[in-house]
Formats: sequence, structure tokens, C-alpha cells
Amino acid sequence: MVRIGIYGATGYTGYELLKIFARHPEAEVVFAASESSAGKRYSEVYPCPYEQVLIAPDEAPLNRIDVAFLCTPHHASAPLAKKVLDAGAKCLDLSADFRLHDAGVYQAWYGTHAVPELLGEAVYGLTEVYRAAVARARLVANPGCYPTGPLLALCPLLRRGVVTGQKIIVDAKSGVSGAGAQPTPTTHFVNVHDSFSAYNIGHTHRHVSEIEQELALYAGRPMRLVFSPHLLPLSRGILSTIYVNVGLDWDPRSIVALWHEAYRDEPFIQVLDAGKLASLAHVVNTNRCALSVASAGVEGEVIIVAAIDNLLKGASGQAVQNMNVLFGLDETLGLVA
Amino acid sequence: MVRIGIYGATGYTGYELLKIFARHPEAEVVFAASESSAGKRYSEVYPCPYEQVLIAPDEAPLNRIDVAFLCTPHHASAPLAKKVLDAGAKCLDLSADFRLHDAGVYQAWYGTHAVPELLGEAVYGLTEVYRAAVARARLVANPGCYPTGPLLALCPLLRRGVVTGQKIIVDAKSGVSGAGAQPTPTTHFVNVHDSFSAYNIGHTHRHVSEIEQELALYAGRPMRLVFSPHLLPLSRGILSTIYVNVGLDWDPRSIVALWHEAYRDEPFIQVLDAGKLASLAHVVNTNRCALSVASAGVEGEVIIVAAIDNLLKGASGQAVQNMNVLFGLDETLGLVA
Amino acid sequence: MVRIGIYGATGYTGYELLKIFARHPEAEVVFAASESSAGKRYSEVYPCPYEQVLIAPDEAPLNRIDVAFLCTPHHASAPLAKKVLDAGAKCLDLSADFRLHDAGVYQAWYGTHAVPELLGEAVYGLTEVYRAAVARARLVANPGCYPTGPLLALCPLLRRGVVTGQKIIVDAKSGVSGAGAQPTPTTHFVNVHDSFSAYNIGHTHRHVSEIEQELALYAGRPMRLVFSPHLLPLSRGILSTIYVNVGLDWDPRSIVALWHEAYRDEPFIQVLDAGKLASLAHVVNTNRCALSVASAGVEGEVIIVAAIDNLLKGASGQAVQNMNVLFGLDETLGLVA
Amino acid sequence: MVRIGIYGATGYTGYELLKIFARHPEAEVVFAASESSAGKRYSEVYPCPYEQVLIAPDEAPLNRIDVAFLCTPHHASAPLAKKVLDAGAKCLDLSADFRLHDAGVYQAWYGTHAVPELLGEAVYGLTEVYRAAVARARLVANPGCYPTGPLLALCPLLRRGVVTGQKIIVDAKSGVSGAGAQPTPTTHFVNVHDSFSAYNIGHTHRHVSEIEQELALYAGRPMRLVFSPHLLPLSRGILSTIYVNVGLDWDPRSIVALWHEAYRDEPFIQVLDAGKLASLAHVVNTNRCALSVASAGVEGEVIIVAAIDNLLKGASGQAVQNMNVLFGLDETLGLVA
Repeated sequence: MVRIGIYGATGYTGYELLKIFARHPEAEVVFAASESSAGKRYSEVYPCPYEQVLIAPDEAPLNRIDVAFLCTPHHASAPLAKKVLDAGAKCLDLSADFRLHDAGVYQAWYGTHAVPELLGEAVYGLTEVYRAAVARARLVANPGCYPTGPLLALCPLLRRGVVTGQKIIVDAKSGVSGAGAQPTPTTHFVNVHDSFSAYNIGHTHRHVSEIEQELALYAGRPMRLVFSPHLLPLSRGILSTIYVNVGLDWDPRSIVALWHEAYRDEPFIQVLDAGKLASLAHVVNTNRCALSVASAGVEGEVIIVAAIDNLLKGASGQAVQNMNVLFGLDETLGLVA
Repeated sequence: MVRIGIYGATGYTGYELLKIFARHPEAEVVFAASESSAGKRYSEVYPCPYEQVLIAPDEAPLNRIDVAFLCTPHHASAPLAKKVLDAGAKCLDLSADFRLHDAGVYQAWYGTHAVPELLGEAVYGLTEVYRAAVARARLVANPGCYPTGPLLALCPLLRRGVVTGQKIIVDAKSGVSGAGAQPTPTTHFVNVHDSFSAYNIGHTHRHVSEIEQELALYAGRPMRLVFSPHLLPLSRGILSTIYVNVGLDWDPRSIVALWHEAYRDEPFIQVLDAGKLASLAHVVNTNRCALSVASAGVEGEVIIVAAIDNLLKGASGQAVQNMNVLFGLDETLGLVA
Repeated sequence: MVRIGIYGATGYTGYELLKIFARHPEAEVVFAASESSAGKRYSEVYPCPYEQVLIAPDEAPLNRIDVAFLCTPHHASAPLAKKVLDAGAKCLDLSADFRLHDAGVYQAWYGTHAVPELLGEAVYGLTEVYRAAVARARLVANPGCYPTGPLLALCPLLRRGVVTGQKIIVDAKSGVSGAGAQPTPTTHFVNVHDSFSAYNIGHTHRHVSEIEQELALYAGRPMRLVFSPHLLPLSRGILSTIYVNVGLDWDPRSIVALWHEAYRDEPFIQVLDAGKLASLAHVVNTNRCALSVASAGVEGEVIIVAAIDNLLKGASGQAVQNMNVLFGLDETLGLVA
Repeated sequence: MVRIGIYGATGYTGYELLKIFARHPEAEVVFAASESSAGKRYSEVYPCPYEQVLIAPDEAPLNRIDVAFLCTPHHASAPLAKKVLDAGAKCLDLSADFRLHDAGVYQAWYGTHAVPELLGEAVYGLTEVYRAAVARARLVANPGCYPTGPLLALCPLLRRGVVTGQKIIVDAKSGVSGAGAQPTPTTHFVNVHDSFSAYNIGHTHRHVSEIEQELALYAGRPMRLVFSPHLLPLSRGILSTIYVNVGLDWDPRSIVALWHEAYRDEPFIQVLDAGKLASLAHVVNTNRCALSVASAGVEGEVIIVAAIDNLLKGASGQAVQNMNVLFGLDETLGLVA
């Protein structure tokens, strides 16, 4: 039994963790902490039958857990992670605090880092890419929701030298849960329903830094991202349409073959046959990432379509996948493959 | 040209008024006032091309308008109405402040009334029922969104003595715009989308007071309402399913005939043939009320289904309809019949 | 390992079964049959990674299964059920063919029954009510989607004599998956989205027969149902608002206590505290039924709100729950409690 | 009074025309024709109060109209257009039959053209670009829904030489009404709702031919389109995210200025300030096209976001706009600016 603590338990990623652990046979939630809802039963916060009482973060019994999930915002996670590690538990952080390896890059996109000395140790938890390192880690930085699909799609191509040029365009569309549980004009039903909008397009969304870091690592050279996030009138899922230049000897069929080779035994990667395109229906409510590719109709250019559930493979599902790796469990426990 | 002032212009009903007046050939918006957004152009508040600059309510040039629309909350409307009337303009209030004739009833449901002396003068602006009084009014209390459909459905039946017993059940379903533009957990997209819920059911929603007042006036005897509001995962529209006991000589066909007779020349009442049922698709984005009725399969009981757009016939549309009546204009100006 | 066969596997209930069995540790799908899609892989029919090849119903290896799930329409299920039983397997029918005990009642609502001799043997599979009989059955008639919520809500009340009078009103709202996978004008996205409509209201929907049969059995006297189904603009879930007359010594608090007593150890029944109301968010994507009750504000009348996921507790989930009972397994295997 | 005939009146574009003409002060619908619904009242086909009886296309009194709107599919429109013109009426075709100037290109994308001799005469009805020609036309080819937004966005840039290189990427997202009123698996509510998908991406969607024709005309040189249509879970609207290379002396601010100059007095073009992005909420239920632009964060590249209502500015609204031009009326009559 892995003993679990959850910080920031009343956000959407915390709720997903509780749902996953309710059916995970090898995990036990020792505490769920929340600044704002301490003292409430979980069923008072979300329409569910979980009667666990939320505790204040300060009262978390760190000595009784094996691993903490940090569903806290960036800047809040960093000092918490230190506290958890100091208490001898492992730490899975779902915020951006440990995704960037370079404190200067973090500074540029997020501001000053509270515990930069931990950056070097943190493992970027894109499980299929960094499984071996995750297995040995104390501190795992769970990837952002937008990066996960494009990185899984592009990693085999970049490592194999398929991609030409520096620029990749990702036109991404996300459900509203990605904006968090806080009520704001942006998440007001009437503003979202029946609309569709772009925001922070170009080179301005913070996930750009994380995606560019990883693309460069896979490619072995700097890469430049043009990134256009959009808000979909639905709750869950991210679909990314990716415009990428490839060598003239590559086409959708050979890229599909490359993915099959790279992800042969992966339970959560669904590679679609050439000619079929991934949709949110392929992945919502699962921990899968669906990958597909088509010709752009222009020589040396293809269009990749990648889909995930932002709260599962894009957050809590991948975090549990990482936990399963960390503790030597069957990687699919608690998750829908 | 009717000269218009709008208070509380940045709520949903204010936005609907601006859209209506943009195509109303006999109205001119002199000012749109907003406490929170004074100084902004309207296009900064809503995704529209209206470049009108919002003013602070205190700076409203009351001497330059013929009529003020109060899109302000209850308790805020009452003193504003007095100010408007004192300045010599007419007043159309979209809040609950002047819908109840009895200050004691108002007290019980809303608290102390600020200007009870105006209650006697206010006309309840259910246009099809009170058109003559509206035409002569200084102060019109625009009906609530929930009451409009059931009252239009039931008025002819109650006046004709069709309804037996005291109790009427209204099972009502409303779109989210009825909850207002304020971001709250209740209006957060993720909480509403793909869900459906009841709230304030029984005899607790404030519109109960208004509906019971009117039912009693039409029936000439006290009536008792069981009222169950529900929240639909869509932006606009209210559909009311109404369970009513009727005399044994009445059936859906004769009730349809009665409505046709009562509403013969009404441009905004759509009576469906017996056997057809009203849906939100009949009325959304129009000022219509669609009426339909079916047998309950129990002797002496029918089921009425009534539909409106809550922001138009249930609020701003009916308010403009009343304004058209007030100023002797074609009643359909600016509105979709 | 329970060996499973599925007929009608490409409808929504068949798809749900495949998703459930993908995570059920004690079940193995031996065949999935489909008249229209035989020869296709399942992943060609739905956006999922199931590569099982669909077979023609005639080629089903009945000797290799322990139980067949019939996701076929009424009239198609009856002869299939006979064939399955004759082959020595058990049978879980999700159609209406075996829900009514009386061939005459079946005749009145559905037409002539093909194998009326099996009607006496079939067990109505409302698990919480008929668990012991289900455990011994060869043939289980899985309840309809609309009946499940109201029957679970009302059974304890009727058995205890709480309900007065004969008439019960059920105002029910269902997601679109209840209308099946066939493309029709009724299920066209543009006709459903942003609309809300009533259909077959009064005493005309076929589920009336099934609900009245059960209500009478629980009450020990005939009951009369007024039933108003509505179509919600969402995919899954049924919320039923139930108007019921009760003895003057009963109120929401004591009814909640009665439910707690009746459903004490039930993993799939969630009784909400008095003052809280069930919503679809409580149950969608789970096998739960959420029960709640409030005062109608009229003496001797309460309003019950019951919610289920129509494809799970209202169909495939309850069918698997029954299968678990039939084979002596933990009742929650494969299901979300 | 312009006397109108409508063919194919029961599709979505026909329904929009009827709604527009219900409030158009200078138009009278003489006939609405439908192959499949001849003899029915319009209110039996759509939930509206229009009691006009649909006639068979063969019985259309062409001698009594000034202009026919063809809401018929490609291949069906071409011979109808000839018939209408021969009868002396003008013709507004909403199909693709007269959008391509070159019969060979038509052949390649749609097959053999039935009346190629009319291709030379037809005017491409992008009103803001071809207003003068529309005013003199007998036969107007109303633009496709996908082309309208990108062409309005790009025309001023291409004419001014802003765009460098040949390739333009349009990542477009459309509501479901674009797929037509026919019930199919693609338009089944459950398949669309809560999903999002790409289809016909690259260089395969038929609108590619039309867009490339126009881009080349504006640029004075061949252009190459990469086009990715997606299906949004909503009924109306198209938002296009356009990746375009521009000269180094151009930036979002100067492009906004260029649009303002090009579209100075256009009632239906809404140019957003630099820094703001168009959304569907800007345009749905109006005849507007909203234009916006942002930096791509890569030198010499910008991202344009253009939005329209596919049934209005992308179909019936623009058709009526063209009709207003054709008959010398105020261009905004019947339309929401």
C-alpha cells in the first residue's frame, strides 16, 4: 500500500486524484489538505460520496506518507516540495515549479524560484520519455497539460531527425477545466458556452518555455515554438494540431510506423492508422494519448493531431502513472488504458 | 424618437437592451450607466461593436430621457425609480422591487421596501394581460423570468374557471444567464456543463410570491404554487412543465382553443396545435412565448409546456415591448416575433 | 473468469459494457456480435483502442460463454434470450422484453411477445430490490433507464406505507444517449444543442408500464403514474423530479433516515443529507444512484430528486452489477461506486 | 418590395433566410420550395411560427419573383440557376457551383459542371471585395462558409503586398450547422458533444480550391493553402487561426491600421484593437466578420484570428447583403451589424 498525501486537494487535479485513488488497489489516501476548505468533508466541496475530512496543510502528517502530490499553484509548490522531501517522502509536483531545468528560464517566465537548489534533481515526468529517471527520482515534475500531447507526438520524430528547420506550430484547443476551479469571467458558463476563442497566442503562454526546453533536448538543437492556445466550450480534453516540416523521405505512413516502434508496449499511447485523425472522444476520461498524422499537401510538411484528457494524461492521470513507476507497481493501476 | 437611459447596463439584461436598441428604429440610447464599468466603452465589456462610453449612475442626465430601464438588483431599483420619476421620466424596472403589490409580502420575501409609496402605482408589466394599464403607467414592473411563461399559460384558464383546486405544480428549467453575469461556483462552466440540477425547490424561490399574487388575481381566489426551478446546461431559455387540475369538460384541444381566443392577435404568443409540445428552440433569440398542452393521462389533469427566452420575453424583450406600448409605438419594434 | 458474450455490441450500451469489461478483473469478453458491423474491429466503430473483431450474431459460440448480455432492441431480444438459455448460458437482457410480468400488459405497450413462456421466470434486475432473486436467476431483465431512479427512490417509501393516494408525478430529464446511436432528426446535434424539450408526456411513454408494475408491487395496491420525459442537451444522465403525497408524519428528514436504513450497505446508493439536492454531476460516469428530498411547501407533499447515469446504473452498469451478483463476485467489480 | 423565391428552403441556410426576411422591410418571400417537404407548412419543419406552405420546386412561379436564392447542393444549383436566369430573374446561389471561375478546377474538385457557359458571368459574392460587380450581376456565387473569414482578413494584406512567400496555414474551427441538416453519424449529438475533431486536413477540403483562387487573385501570384478544418461542439460559427508570413516592416499594429483603412465604412467588418482577439461570441447571430491579429513571436510572422457566423456572414446573411446591393437597398436591411 502506497500511503498518499494530497496538497491543494480541492482543485480539479486534486478531485481527479481522489477519483483515481478510490479505485486504485495499492494506494491509500492518508490526507487531503486544503487551505480554503480545511474541516469540510470532501463531499461538501464536490458532488461525490467521499467523506474524507480535509485538513489544513500545516497539519499534514508527513511522517505517515510515502509520497505527496502537490496540486498547488506554482510558487506555492516549491517550498512545499522541500518540506516533503525533508520529511523523507517522495514528491510529485503538478505545478510548473520543477519543470524547467534552468533557474534563469524559470525567472523569465514565472519569476524568482524559491528553492532553485532542487531544480537539478527534479525529473520531468513525461513517463514514456523519462521512465527510467522517474523510477529513481525523489522529486518528479509532472508535465503541463498543453506540453504532454505535442511532446509525446514529436519526441520520436526529433530524436530520429525527422524534423527539419527550427519552427513548429502548435495550434492547441483546451477544455475549460484547464483554467482551474476559480470562478472568473473567463470561466463563466455564459461566456464560454457557444463561443470559441484564442488567447495568449504566439510566444506568450508560459507552457512555451517548457515545450521549447523539451523539444531542444529531443532534437539536440534549439527549437522555436509558435503556440496558439484556444478555449473550447467543453470541460475536458486538449487537441493539438501541429504543423511540422519533415525530411522529404518521411510521410504519414512512415511516421505512424516510427510511433509504433517508439511506443510499442506503451499502454497509454494509441497510434491511429494513417488516414485516421485523433479526436477528444478518443481520450476523454482515460489516461491515453492518441496520435495521428496527415499530409499537409505541401512537400515536406505534415500535420500531426494529438489528443489527451488534460486532467488525466495531462495532469493527475500521468501523476499516478509516475507514482506507479516510482513504487514499482503495474503502471496502469487505477488508470483507464 | 424615444430617448432611453439604462441603469445597470453591463448585466445580461442591459446587454440585451443595447442589442435590441441597435435595431430599434424609434429609440435612441442617451446613456448607459454602470457603477463598476463607468468610463469604459461598451465593447470592452462585451464582445460587440458598441462603442458607447458607460457613465457613472450619478452622472445620468435624467432630464434628457423619456424613459429609464432599471437593470439594477432589487433594493437598488426602488430608490432609483423614485429619482427617475421625480425627474419626470417614465420608468421600466426589471428588478423585483415593484412586482408585488403588497409591501408586507415584499417584506416577507425580499426585506424592507425603500419606497413603498410607489407600490400602488406600479403596473405589473405582463404585456398581454395588462396592456391597457401599461399604456397609462409611469412606472412599470417588468415580470420575472420564471413567472412570465406560466402566467401567460394559466391566465386564460384561471379567468375562465378552467382550473380546479388550489394547487399548481410548475417544474421549471432555466438557462444559466438567469443566474446573472457574476462569476460564482454556480455559474462556473465546469460545474454547469454536462450537469443538470434542481435548486430552491418547493415554496422557497422568490418568484413564488410573484406567481402566487398573479394566479390569485386571475382566479379570484388564493392559489398555491409548488415550484421547482432547475438549472439547464445552456445559456438562454426557460421551459416550464405545469401540472394543473382542470374541470372534466376541458381537454388539450379545448384549452388550445381557449388560448387561441385569448391571444388571437398577439404577435408574441405562439399557440401550438394539440399534440405538439413547446421547446426552447421555439423561442430562443425571440420575444415569443410558446404554449402547448397535453393530457396527463389522469382524468381532470393536463400538462402544460410553456417556453420563453428568459432574457427577451422574460426580461429585456418584454421591457421593450412595454416601452413600445407606453409610447404608442408598434409593439413589435426592435423585437423578433 | 466469467466468460461473456455481447449481442448488439455496437449500440451505446454495448460500448459501455466493453469499457467496463476492459477494467473488470473477473470477466473475459468471448464475443461481441453485431448485425451491421460484423467483420469490423471495434476501434472502427467507436473512438477506442479495442481491437476485438465483431462477429455476426449467427456465428456466436454460445457454448463458450457463461452469460450473454443482450443489447438488442425489444422484440429482437426475446428469441435471442431463448436461444441463449437453451444453450445453457445465463442471460442478461437490457431490452424491455422481460421487464413486464404480464404478457397482456406487454401486448398493450409493445405488441405480441415472441416467447411469453419465459416471462414468468425472468427476474426484474433492480439489484438493490431484487438481489436475492437475481442471484438465483437464469434470465434477468435489466430495468429501463427512466424507471431505475424513481423506483429506487420510491420503493422504501411504498413498502413502508409512506405514500398516500395513488398518483405520483415523475418529471424526468434525460441525456441524448437514451435515444440510441441511430442518427435521426431527434438526435441531430443542431436540434438538441441549446434546446430542451418534452416528449411523450402524460401516460404514453413505454416505461410507464414498467414503473407502474413495480410501484404497485412495492405498494401492494395499484398506483398511477404521470410521467413527463424531457430531452437534455447533454449525453448522459437522468434526473427525475418526483412529486409525491406522503403521510403527515413524514418529512424530508425522516425520509432521508428511511433511505439510509433501507440502503445502509449499498455501495451504489448515495443518500444526500436533507437540504441537499441530487444533480447529474453526482452520478455521471458512475454506477451510483443519488437520492434527495425536499419539502414541497404544501402539507403532505414532498419533492424527491433522483439521479443516475442512464448508460451505467440505468443500463450497462446495473447489468454488470447483476452479473456480479449472478456469479457470486464482489458487486462493485468493474464499476465506479 | 423585392420579390423572393427560395429553393432548398428546408436546409439551415433556407431557414436563416426565412428568419431574415421575416424582419426585412423591403422583401417579400413569394415562394419557398423543397423537394422533400412540399405541401408542409414551414412550422412543421422547424420550431417557428412561419405558416408558409412549401411548394415543389417544379411548381415555382418564376415569373413572379425578382430574385431566387438557391440553397440547393452543388450540381443541383447549376441547372436551376440557368432556369432562373432564363425566366428573367436574378440568381443568388449559395452552393459551390459558380464560385470557381475555371471549369477545369471545378472538374478537379467537384466533377463535371452542368452549365459551364455561365461560369464566366458569375460574380463571386464576397461583398466587401466585389461590391461593384455584385451590383451589376445577374448571377452571384455566394462564398463558402470557410473562405469568407480568411479572405476578408487576407485580401487587404495580399493586395498591399504584405504577405511574403506562397504558403498560408488556416486552422479553422466550425460549428455543426456547417455539416447540414441531414442526420448522420457525424452530426449525432453524442458523437459531437464534448468532442472536438479535425477532418479533411491538409489540401483535401473542397473549399481549398475556392480560397486558393481568391488568394491568387488578390496577390497577383499563385498561393498555396494548408487548410485544417475542425468540428466544434456548438451549432454556429467559424473561427479561423491563420499563420502568415509578412514583410519585416509589418506588425499587428500596422496590419490593424491597414484593415481599418480597407474597411473604413464597412458595416459588417469589426476590426479589433491590436492585443484583442476575435471570438465566436463577437459574431454569432450577426452578419459581422471580426478581424484580429497578434505577433507569432517569430520574426516576419503573424497570427490572424477571424470569426464569422457560418450561417449568416458565411451563407444566408451575406446572400441577403448581396441582394441588398443587387437591388440598391441599404446594405444592412434585415441584418444585424
